[in-house]
Amino acid sequence: MATKPTSADKFSFGLWTVGYNGADPFGGPTRAALDVVHVVEKLTELGAYGLTFHDDDLFAFGSTDAERQAQIDRLTQALDATGLTVPMVTTNLFSAPVFKDGGFTSNDRAVRRFALRKVIRNIDLAAELGAKTFVMWGGREGAEYDSAKDIRSALSRYREAVNLLGDYVTDKGYDIRFAIEPKPNEPRGDILLPTVGHAIAFINTLDRPELVGVNPEVGHEQMAGLNFAAGIAQALDCGKLFHIDLNGQRGIKYDQDLVFGHGDLHNAFALVDLLENGGPNGGPAYDGPRHFDYKPSRTEDETGVWDSAAANMRTYLLLKERAAAFRADPEVREALEAARVTELAQPTLGEGESYDDLIADRAAYEDFDPGAYFDGKGFGFVRLQQLATEHLMGAR
Amino acid sequence: MATKPTSADKFSFGLWTVGYNGADPFGGPTRAALDVVHVVEKLTELGAYGLTFHDDDLFAFGSTDAERQAQIDRLTQALDATGLTVPMVTTNLFSAPVFKDGGFTSNDRAVRRFALRKVIRNIDLAAELGAKTFVMWGGREGAEYDSAKDIRSALSRYREAVNLLGDYVTDKGYDIRFAIEPKPNEPRGDILLPTVGHAIAFINTLDRPELVGVNPEVGHEQMAGLNFAAGIAQALDCGKLFHIDLNGQRGIKYDQDLVFGHGDLHNAFALVDLLENGGPNGGPAYDGPRHFDYKPSRTEDETGVWDSAAANMRTYLLLKERAAAFRADPEVREALEAARVTELAQPTLGEGESYDDLIADRAAYEDFDPGAYFDGKGFGFVRLQQLATEHLMGAR
Amino acid sequence: MATKPTSADKFSFGLWTVGYNGADPFGGPTRAALDVVHVVEKLTELGAYGLTFHDDDLFAFGSTDAERQAQIDRLTQALDATGLTVPMVTTNLFSAPVFKDGGFTSNDRAVRRFALRKVIRNIDLAAELGAKTFVMWGGREGAEYDSAKDIRSALSRYREAVNLLGDYVTDKGYDIRFAIEPKPNEPRGDILLPTVGHAIAFINTLDRPELVGVNPEVGHEQMAGLNFAAGIAQALDCGKLFHIDLNGQRGIKYDQDLVFGHGDLHNAFALVDLLENGGPNGGPAYDGPRHFDYKPSRTEDETGVWDSAAANMRTYLLLKERAAAFRADPEVREALEAARVTELAQPTLGEGESYDDLIADRAAYEDFDPGAYFDGKGFGFVRLQQLATEHLMGAR
Amino acid sequence: MATKPTSADKFSFGLWTVGYNGADPFGGPTRAALDVVHVVEKLTELGAYGLTFHDDDLFAFGSTDAERQAQIDRLTQALDATGLTVPMVTTNLFSAPVFKDGGFTSNDRAVRRFALRKVIRNIDLAAELGAKTFVMWGGREGAEYDSAKDIRSALSRYREAVNLLGDYVTDKGYDIRFAIEPKPNEPRGDILLPTVGHAIAFINTLDRPELVGVNPEVGHEQMAGLNFAAGIAQALDCGKLFHIDLNGQRGIKYDQDLVFGHGDLHNAFALVDLLENGGPNGGPAYDGPRHFDYKPSRTEDETGVWDSAAANMRTYLLLKERAAAFRADPEVREALEAARVTELAQPTLGEGESYDDLIADRAAYEDFDPGAYFDGKGFGFVRLQQLATEHLMGAR
Repeated sequence: MATKPTSADKFSFGLWTVGYNGADPFGGPTRAALDVVHVVEKLTELGAYGLTFHDDDLFAFGSTDAERQAQIDRLTQALDATGLTVPMVTTNLFSAPVFKDGGFTSNDRAVRRFALRKVIRNIDLAAELGAKTFVMWGGREGAEYDSAKDIRSALSRYREAVNLLGDYVTDKGYDIRFAIEPKPNEPRGDILLPTVGHAIAFINTLDRPELVGVNPEVGHEQMAGLNFAAGIAQALDCGKLFHIDLNGQRGIKYDQDLVFGHGDLHNAFALVDLLENGGPNGGPAYDGPRHFDYKPSRTEDETGVWDSAAANMRTYLLLKERAAAFRADPEVREALEAARVTELAQPTLGEGESYDDLIADRAAYEDFDPGAYFDGKGFGFVRLQQLATEHLMGAR
Repeated sequence: MATKPTSADKFSFGLWTVGYNGADPFGGPTRAALDVVHVVEKLTELGAYGLTFHDDDLFAFGSTDAERQAQIDRLTQALDATGLTVPMVTTNLFSAPVFKDGGFTSNDRAVRRFALRKVIRNIDLAAELGAKTFVMWGGREGAEYDSAKDIRSALSRYREAVNLLGDYVTDKGYDIRFAIEPKPNEPRGDILLPTVGHAIAFINTLDRPELVGVNPEVGHEQMAGLNFAAGIAQALDCGKLFHIDLNGQRGIKYDQDLVFGHGDLHNAFALVDLLENGGPNGGPAYDGPRHFDYKPSRTEDETGVWDSAAANMRTYLLLKERAAAFRADPEVREALEAARVTELAQPTLGEGESYDDLIADRAAYEDFDPGAYFDGKGFGFVRLQQLATEHLMGAR
Repeated sequence: MATKPTSADKFSFGLWTVGYNGADPFGGPTRAALDVVHVVEKLTELGAYGLTFHDDDLFAFGSTDAERQAQIDRLTQALDATGLTVPMVTTNLFSAPVFKDGGFTSNDRAVRRFALRKVIRNIDLAAELGAKTFVMWGGREGAEYDSAKDIRSALSRYREAVNLLGDYVTDKGYDIRFAIEPKPNEPRGDILLPTVGHAIAFINTLDRPELVGVNPEVGHEQMAGLNFAAGIAQALDCGKLFHIDLNGQRGIKYDQDLVFGHGDLHNAFALVDLLENGGPNGGPAYDGPRHFDYKPSRTEDETGVWDSAAANMRTYLLLKERAAAFRADPEVREALEAARVTELAQPTLGEGESYDDLIADRAAYEDFDPGAYFDGKGFGFVRLQQLATEHLMGAR
Repeated sequence: MATKPTSADKFSFGLWTVGYNGADPFGGPTRAALDVVHVVEKLTELGAYGLTFHDDDLFAFGSTDAERQAQIDRLTQALDATGLTVPMVTTNLFSAPVFKDGGFTSNDRAVRRFALRKVIRNIDLAAELGAKTFVMWGGREGAEYDSAKDIRSALSRYREAVNLLGDYVTDKGYDIRFAIEPKPNEPRGDILLPTVGHAIAFINTLDRPELVGVNPEVGHEQMAGLNFAAGIAQALDCGKLFHIDLNGQRGIKYDQDLVFGHGDLHNAFALVDLLENGGPNGGPAYDGPRHFDYKPSRTEDETGVWDSAAANMRTYLLLKERAAAFRADPEVREALEAARVTELAQPTLGEGESYDDLIADRAAYEDFDPGAYFDGKGFGFVRLQQLATEHLMGAR
């Protein structure tokens, strides 16, 4: 299997990722801004197929119409020249001072109205560029203090906003779906819709739930100590995995945005295995972009920027190789069987069996021997994990 | 306001809480078992109104029918004698070796069938005792290793189980609703439905979602670093707060089950304020049991058990008093207004306003001055938090 | 007891705290810079006694000598005019790009030499201003990747730097001691000397350990889930509490720098009790500055800046009041006695008792009844915690 | 390189590890106890060289002298028969109810005296069996509530105990050193000496610091979000790595005690690299036992117990292989050079250079160009991490 990326791998990058200037809470930029045309050319060269961006990444907040259009034109020319696509667009409702208490859920109604207008304008641009997914990361939608935000009102306003946008794209006939990106905290003390679960629960309260899914990010779920691959599995179970943000995070701390695989490597392996081999027939369970939302470390100069971009893709492909070998290994198959992993796909009730039938089945309860599970009927999970570890390490 | 609990306060306790024998991963019991009749009498005396239990709390796993019935009879007699109620019942699918890989989602199908039978039997008992809520904490439904559990199959089996139980109570005409209790981990490395959000997202995939809500526990959400009061607000927004487990937790670590208020006191204050004053007209937002799911510390003897039970209720009532004073304070009202907390209740669009109207409103965008939010238009959130802190500390 | 601060309370603030402009990883400034003279005047008015600063707070990195001196002069004039003091000074080795891999432990030797020079120059200024403590927060001394930093070499270089500075202040006859400020992570993935313990362990390897202590910060220890008050107690036990940074943090997440008491309120109560009442005769255990290292939330304008500064001091004084009442309450004294808290001050061996005597004491082992601790000899810790909680809430 | 363990690899296991019966806070045992003779035989067969134990692992708490001796005899016979050694012994001061508030630092003086006697008796046994290290894990030395434990008194009692034991082994002429095992929490809310740093800081206050080092455990440091390999490096820097506990942990949560390498694989790689290749000449930095302190998952039967024991050793050896390849790879060497990792070994000052010389060196400051570090002089750390990742994955 090749570990050199091609456009068939559907790797995409945010303009703000390779373009990150190195600023953090304790220091200013360590790198100059990258021009969008240069980014498009380099990403193409490295084997990516897509570029994504926030409005403010492409043209600074407060740009005139002319400045804005000039940048859009430069981007589209570069896209035409390279064949790179824009599969996703998103709006920045978190950087400018006006959004200091959020956009859709700012306590300040005038801000909410401004935010809606900013998003609508950017949706038009997304449609124009052919993006199929519009991501909404509500990083400022939240609070540091419990009394500062009426959470139920905030959720009502969030819903009002997403409902309006759903109407808008529907009426305009745009071929765009929304993907909400959850995060538990940072930059706010607590952010609304903190996990994949909370986001999906919220989506189910919308007028057009079918239009809205999630865009989970590896590090965001891991900042809450949650198992990312398991969260993705639940999103798939709900039919809500509309987009995905790949990166690395080393435990519960500030948002690190490391290269994919430079964080929890076991879980990265499980994730790639799920995405690539977790479908009903063992094929891909997800066919959208493999989008990297990471930051080249602040210690790097531009060489490190492109090295890190390449590292994301290479690690993904290496994990894909190892996951394929894991699935193909007869000993793994035997171990999965022994651990009854496959038995879980079998319904608990027999075909046509009712609860009355179950209650009448003495084998299920009266004659069942729970004592056999003491000192027996071990599941062999550790052996399975060791097999996974050895495949991950290329040791089998 | 009184801080002596009465049955009107609807305080309930799990039999396993005051009955906790002190065993933990590094040591055995430090206290003898408490008899259920004694527990009923003491809780009544302390001012509680309800007792809840798992089947195995009342009669040991593997009891004969006669042993089981004897214990049920002793309980019901004590209830009759004291007036204590059983508002909630739950089933233990996590302690016995047979459940070492879970109950509803064990890889072993025979275990899943046994688990369903155990639950059905206990639902019949719940109905008999008049319980209105049946809690399901799937503490063993999960895995330590990603390859050991096909999460999507597991969710399918979970759904199959809850759907069957929904049919069962419906057909039997039981006046019972289910409440799923989320937890991120412990005793499994990762547990299915790890947060309030994940549980509600799952509930929306059920055949009878209206029958199923959540039973969030303070410490469980805080083990994922999540804001408990915010999670409860979202559960209320979804109409899914069917029951609640109150206790204390000091950050992201093992499940501590401390007395309510002995953990994050600020968030406990916000929670009581939400439950008691968060309704549409400022009244209670939740009218179910205030259920304590805590453990008297292992260092305590029986005196400490009852002291700790009383402490839960007293702290709740003290917080209720302080929340009432907070809401009544004119300076707080003014500060809430200044922080535009109340403005968030106002829809972002005017009555009858369409997105076209919004787009046409130059005041919303073209003539709006985002620059005014730099060095101005501060929200005053810190002042508000200080007012809350001072009320919490009884200093105003 | 008064809750209006006076200089006798020894409250001090970093210039960078009230001066924080609101920039964070996801947004730029929301407030203009504050002039140092204005800050000195406002802090004096609010009741503070001290101002602290990094060199770069007072005069921008790269200032000419003249620019630097002009700012120093403006500061000293303001200090003279107000009576405010500068009890502590510190150097910024983390913001400028040159420090992207740290200062004292940058892999780049030229950077290490530059860092030493920058610090030496600032120590001279500290001495000139009469500061008694020189804080060293090595926020960039660390790494994101294990192979990128040879930790033992890094510790050697750290030691080399602090040893040199110790020689310098000794030779110059400066009345200055150093205080190392630990932090587990952010802005680096892992920071050297991540906790109070690691810092003290390191100090013991220095040439002049007596010159160097710690400057623990509430939130920094809590970012590792550690008990701050317990860490301070160990620092006191080692004679190493040279300075302290007070603020608030809500659990394991990014560094929040909230107002003191707006985080873990129980632990803040325990801390103030320790600092004020934990000395041998019940008096203060620490007599240095009560230094606030916090950030006014990004949502605030200048009004919020000063409100938050005042809130820090007021909360401290309220906690001091409550701690005094807690210690004075006869029921608390009785409960402490019952919990044998006081008995721990008594040595385990009797006066003059040898291990041979202990081994010969049958009462200690052969005739001792460990069984009495089952279902008996409870410690009453929960009752004590409830008493503390009620005092904290002003409910007794 | 061989991945089949031999006694030269110095792998040792606690009797309580393979002997773990599966009990946890939410369920009882799932496996029967293993006989010590069987354990000795199996570990030998698998390639281990050592067995370690707590007194209570070998003979139950409260055993008669005869029962105790019988078990010791059975153990020594098995050791003789197999050649397995006992390199380390430790005492259980945490399981029995008498230790519910700790051993050396229980508020109850009689308990402290009993604890000392129990330890002294077990030290005699350790000496008899030829153990060179005596581990002290003070898992119950701590508190849930701040007012329940006077931390400074507790540290005084801890010191008193360790000082007495130091005198004891010295006077007896035992060739034994002590190793304190830190842990942040669980089973207590907060444990004394929570990290490697705190333990070393405490050791420096002892009468005989040279007799006492640390026994860090992978999962324990990771429960505080700390970098384990970095902590080990600091312990080595202090000359305090007397013993080590290897296992796996998946982030900040309850103590998981997984197989080594089944947790944070990147950090496990860095650790093995440090232990094996981190010495002054690139050889081992530590030559003591590679001790596994893990628990076979509760889902396993005895087959899984031995599979998991073997997995620990095999993963260690695979990581050792990969670390050797990493160090030998010319591209890695070049990348380390480029990242100036090696330059950090060079002192910041030249040989014989004084601070006056440094101050006089205009190249160090006046003529140094910090601006060159903006958009230049990148460190190449991400490339290095990618090389490490690929070696870890066996992909180079």
